[in-house]
Amino acid sequence: MLVVMQSHASEEQVRAVCERIESLGFKAHPIPGSIRTAIGITGNTGAVDIGSLEAMPGVVECIPVSKPYKLVSRDIKNENTIVRIPTPLGDVSFGGSAVAVIAGPCAIETRDQAFSVAERIKQIGARLFRGGAYKPRTSPYSFQGLGEPGLKILAEIRDSLGLGIVTEAIDNESLDLVEKYADVIQIGARNMQNFSLLKRAGRSRKPVLLKRGMSATLDEFLMAAEYVMSEGNYNIILCERGVRTFSDHTRNTLDLSLIPAVQRLSHLPIVVDPSHGTGRRNKVIPLSRAAVAVGANGLLVEVHCDPDRALSDGMQSIIPIEFEQLMREVRQIAGVLSRSIN
Amino acid sequence: MLVVMQSHASEEQVRAVCERIESLGFKAHPIPGSIRTAIGITGNTGAVDIGSLEAMPGVVECIPVSKPYKLVSRDIKNENTIVRIPTPLGDVSFGGSAVAVIAGPCAIETRDQAFSVAERIKQIGARLFRGGAYKPRTSPYSFQGLGEPGLKILAEIRDSLGLGIVTEAIDNESLDLVEKYADVIQIGARNMQNFSLLKRAGRSRKPVLLKRGMSATLDEFLMAAEYVMSEGNYNIILCERGVRTFSDHTRNTLDLSLIPAVQRLSHLPIVVDPSHGTGRRNKVIPLSRAAVAVGANGLLVEVHCDPDRALSDGMQSIIPIEFEQLMREVRQIAGVLSRSIN
Amino acid sequence: MLVVMQSHASEEQVRAVCERIESLGFKAHPIPGSIRTAIGITGNTGAVDIGSLEAMPGVVECIPVSKPYKLVSRDIKNENTIVRIPTPLGDVSFGGSAVAVIAGPCAIETRDQAFSVAERIKQIGARLFRGGAYKPRTSPYSFQGLGEPGLKILAEIRDSLGLGIVTEAIDNESLDLVEKYADVIQIGARNMQNFSLLKRAGRSRKPVLLKRGMSATLDEFLMAAEYVMSEGNYNIILCERGVRTFSDHTRNTLDLSLIPAVQRLSHLPIVVDPSHGTGRRNKVIPLSRAAVAVGANGLLVEVHCDPDRALSDGMQSIIPIEFEQLMREVRQIAGVLSRSIN
Amino acid sequence: MLVVMQSHASEEQVRAVCERIESLGFKAHPIPGSIRTAIGITGNTGAVDIGSLEAMPGVVECIPVSKPYKLVSRDIKNENTIVRIPTPLGDVSFGGSAVAVIAGPCAIETRDQAFSVAERIKQIGARLFRGGAYKPRTSPYSFQGLGEPGLKILAEIRDSLGLGIVTEAIDNESLDLVEKYADVIQIGARNMQNFSLLKRAGRSRKPVLLKRGMSATLDEFLMAAEYVMSEGNYNIILCERGVRTFSDHTRNTLDLSLIPAVQRLSHLPIVVDPSHGTGRRNKVIPLSRAAVAVGANGLLVEVHCDPDRALSDGMQSIIPIEFEQLMREVRQIAGVLSRSIN
Repeated sequence: MLVVMQSHASEEQVRAVCERIESLGFKAHPIPGSIRTAIGITGNTGAVDIGSLEAMPGVVECIPVSKPYKLVSRDIKNENTIVRIPTPLGDVSFGGSAVAVIAGPCAIETRDQAFSVAERIKQIGARLFRGGAYKPRTSPYSFQGLGEPGLKILAEIRDSLGLGIVTEAIDNESLDLVEKYADVIQIGARNMQNFSLLKRAGRSRKPVLLKRGMSATLDEFLMAAEYVMSEGNYNIILCERGVRTFSDHTRNTLDLSLIPAVQRLSHLPIVVDPSHGTGRRNKVIPLSRAAVAVGANGLLVEVHCDPDRALSDGMQSIIPIEFEQLMREVRQIAGVLSRSIN
Repeated sequence: MLVVMQSHASEEQVRAVCERIESLGFKAHPIPGSIRTAIGITGNTGAVDIGSLEAMPGVVECIPVSKPYKLVSRDIKNENTIVRIPTPLGDVSFGGSAVAVIAGPCAIETRDQAFSVAERIKQIGARLFRGGAYKPRTSPYSFQGLGEPGLKILAEIRDSLGLGIVTEAIDNESLDLVEKYADVIQIGARNMQNFSLLKRAGRSRKPVLLKRGMSATLDEFLMAAEYVMSEGNYNIILCERGVRTFSDHTRNTLDLSLIPAVQRLSHLPIVVDPSHGTGRRNKVIPLSRAAVAVGANGLLVEVHCDPDRALSDGMQSIIPIEFEQLMREVRQIAGVLSRSIN
Repeated sequence: MLVVMQSHASEEQVRAVCERIESLGFKAHPIPGSIRTAIGITGNTGAVDIGSLEAMPGVVECIPVSKPYKLVSRDIKNENTIVRIPTPLGDVSFGGSAVAVIAGPCAIETRDQAFSVAERIKQIGARLFRGGAYKPRTSPYSFQGLGEPGLKILAEIRDSLGLGIVTEAIDNESLDLVEKYADVIQIGARNMQNFSLLKRAGRSRKPVLLKRGMSATLDEFLMAAEYVMSEGNYNIILCERGVRTFSDHTRNTLDLSLIPAVQRLSHLPIVVDPSHGTGRRNKVIPLSRAAVAVGANGLLVEVHCDPDRALSDGMQSIIPIEFEQLMREVRQIAGVLSRSIN
Repeated sequence: MLVVMQSHASEEQVRAVCERIESLGFKAHPIPGSIRTAIGITGNTGAVDIGSLEAMPGVVECIPVSKPYKLVSRDIKNENTIVRIPTPLGDVSFGGSAVAVIAGPCAIETRDQAFSVAERIKQIGARLFRGGAYKPRTSPYSFQGLGEPGLKILAEIRDSLGLGIVTEAIDNESLDLVEKYADVIQIGARNMQNFSLLKRAGRSRKPVLLKRGMSATLDEFLMAAEYVMSEGNYNIILCERGVRTFSDHTRNTLDLSLIPAVQRLSHLPIVVDPSHGTGRRNKVIPLSRAAVAVGANGLLVEVHCDPDRALSDGMQSIIPIEFEQLMREVRQIAGVLSRSIN
């Protein structure tokens, strides 16, 4: 924490702030500037939050400084983490030189619906299939997912088509089941700070796809991953899916600058979800191109054979023929960056 | 949903959109304007989201219209809901003519710390005590609360001082315990869309204090309450606690206009948390006054006897003598609105 | 500026950053913490922005620290500035113990419309009349104001009713005229960073009412006032009028915590505009009460005798009978804070 | 405008609302749904804003619907507008098949500084040079630009190097001069709703580069362009430069989804400014790639030979060797979309 003093703060005021800091067991480092003095605080345990300092005479404001994350940071591990997902068709990796694509419907609605999408996305070249069996919906009256029967359909798709399975867990109970049936456990944006769920995911041996919360800062996002890692699970794929802003021409505002920002601070791979990130079908392909161009380690895309009759998120699902175009275009963009698609 | 057509859209294009709508089982209502045509859609089940319409020739955009909440709405129940909390010192009500105040530390740290705050806030006139035994913290390395031993301290405070207890549950396991020890189950901002937890709270017989999520719209907030009500628990107290914006002079931006907006649409009571709403000790009293002046049904205030040594949220906790001033001032403001404090 | 180093940054890396800082003519102050080192930078001219530091090995990030405002700050002048507006009915002051109210229609539409509102608000007790002759409208096809004929109507109202006049200037040309006819020059939210206009207002001898920009931080708002003051005009009344956020139940989100935040840092008075701040007629009275309760130095309220036929902002204008209720209620709230209304 | 009624609204209430609408000279279109009735309003003049409707019994809310822009819209002109900038080295076009790049320092500081950057960016392949002679700065004490002497340096660069010149006007006076010396008149983000300046630019015969305001919605941005067009200047290049959000890892949040959204509604070309859009030097290249990949018609990039000593925006300026890499990479990305760089 840094304490900024008023320009006319007296020496006694500066001294009094330093003494308060030291009396609480921290160390004070006054930095006399030409206009005003600032006082750095260091201590031996994480962030320092001293509420009373701001009320002391001569103090303008207190600015938090420390970055509290550890395990997610390049401070601890400088080389990129590569998360490997074993599938019957071979491993798919996040964080290496290839860009990995996960595709499928928002929700598993029926066996037929799921298989028809899965077959098409496999033909088009994806090896990871997404589809929700548990759906966090804004309304209690909306379709909430099939639950375990949905997971069984996903397992069947894995067995018969060879695709790896990515699906969401929404509480400890569903996580127990998702862990059993799926290859990657997805934690949704609304649960990014459901710390109980993050800890449970941290005790799993399956990789975790962690989506950024709707209004999470970069620090909060990395701290959520830190929760998972602090319990022992180091296989985390981060996911940018748009944040909430005043901007109303898309459902969310896709924050692509997060990709290089995360890659600078953390060794974890990060993918982009252009479907939730825009909420509009006609923007999924251009933003997928942009995501690969900015350097994302992968994409998470909603594909549905009949979006108009989808039980959720039909507005943002593309159809297989559009997914084919998407794959063709991102493959070329990836090539420009000397990367491939897997 | 309302489909807005281009001004030069042809009659065939308008007709084609109407036909698509009808073919999906909905009803189309074209509204020819002097500049352009809009097409209203009505159907028999909640919100309509037809993804393909926006891609049809002649369409500019699709605007969602329906309000999906039911039980929380004045449509269903026009008179105010009054939530009664029985305490040894008598009932405290939210939603009636009195303004109810809940006060106490962010977290229960020790028996002594909790009792010393509780005794003071009782002296000053509050009858509901808050204090977290389970703390959702941004960092896994921060103090996470005492757990059940913390709840036992709260129960002791209830027994010896007669205060009603408000405390947070963060998952189904902690809710089982909170339900047993406390008078009001708090659901925090980060869990506002933890639908699994909301449903569990809906199956409880204890009242629920539901905090607005950091970036929740009014509709999403009411829908979260709808989740609780749809499971049978009608005793809900809503709580505005600030939202996340670009504005950086406070930790969150307290959105006081939400109070009359909620009271217009819903029969549920709503209180304000000026401690999280500002994150700054020196703003808690003025914003408490404003909250009562705008018409809130209550306040939720963090009070600590030694905020500099608090294990969490010391920056925003006021001390007992400040709480005394707060109570004196809000009592007078309440009087202006012909209301009392309880 | 504060440079935060990685926890594993080597001594040479720290030294290299310090040397770069010193080579550019600034002074480096390393603060070794138990986890990582931070380096404070001080220099002799305002803010330091060294772009290359963030790219140096071992650096995590650079945090700006300095507060660049001077004249607006309590650092320079600790006692409150009182802005006195002389009117035929007597002086109205902003920043003293009384709360001052400015009321009137969004725009001057006709002589009759203006006079009918002015007479009513005078009867009800206001002594400052607002009304736009120059209207910044989102659409070029909306009513843009009457221009100088509108100013003449305002001058007539001043002459015959004795009310002081507050009206907006939108460019240097209109400011020349507003200065001539009005008592207070209003600078609108959209022009808060129209620095050319701010400088021109700074060369005027008339007081300036400066509205916060839609997405201005506290620092930017104070810096805009600094522009006016740096040209010699010290009579500035700040105005909070709501900011733009994701929150969609009101037109803007009124940020009442700005009032104590400004009053802590600056000696200038600050008023609240609940009409633009909410954009909804039914929220103007409750938010006016809250604004006075939080400690604002005044209110700016839109009143219209026939809002449904108003040429602008009819959605947010209250009618005279509602203004009467507003005055009655805020007078009582002001009384609680030992203040009066003038 | 669409009026949404309560589900239990009576027939009389619906009728009363319709009558009020008709009495004001508009037409009411009730749409009876299975849950509630909505009432569409059409009229013969632009947007309808009837303030009193929301206060009528049985009304839940009023939703604005009309898109008020005309000339900027594909409704009026379906084919893309191509803005041609004649330079001594040949025309540069925005809106055609090529991606156009504008590069140069934030501000013109000295003749030497400007020429050294201009020569390098010309070598690297750019044909349009940017550099501010008038700088809108947050602080009145920051460097405000050289004014007309700066414009003369730009004219010299045009004459000796053949580059086209893009530079900002901040008020009517500077616009008179910019118009005389430059090839493109830039209107900055802070002036996007300086309607007086927009109208003046609309009376110029030089093309206008119009930057999106920090918190402008898509509609407001297009309406600002409409102001320019409504005065007769149809040569407008729009520019996305990041918006203000809670997200703090970059200076602004670059909203790349705006590009396809604008291209869908408007015939005007749109470019991206990754320098202001991120505010961080290390993010300019990845976001430039993303901007071209998403389909932008051009880029506006800050390049400086010695950013650490730049008088403004050093934190976000790249050096010439980085600009060379940028051009190489975006050229390849453009190739994927069958486009070239000019």
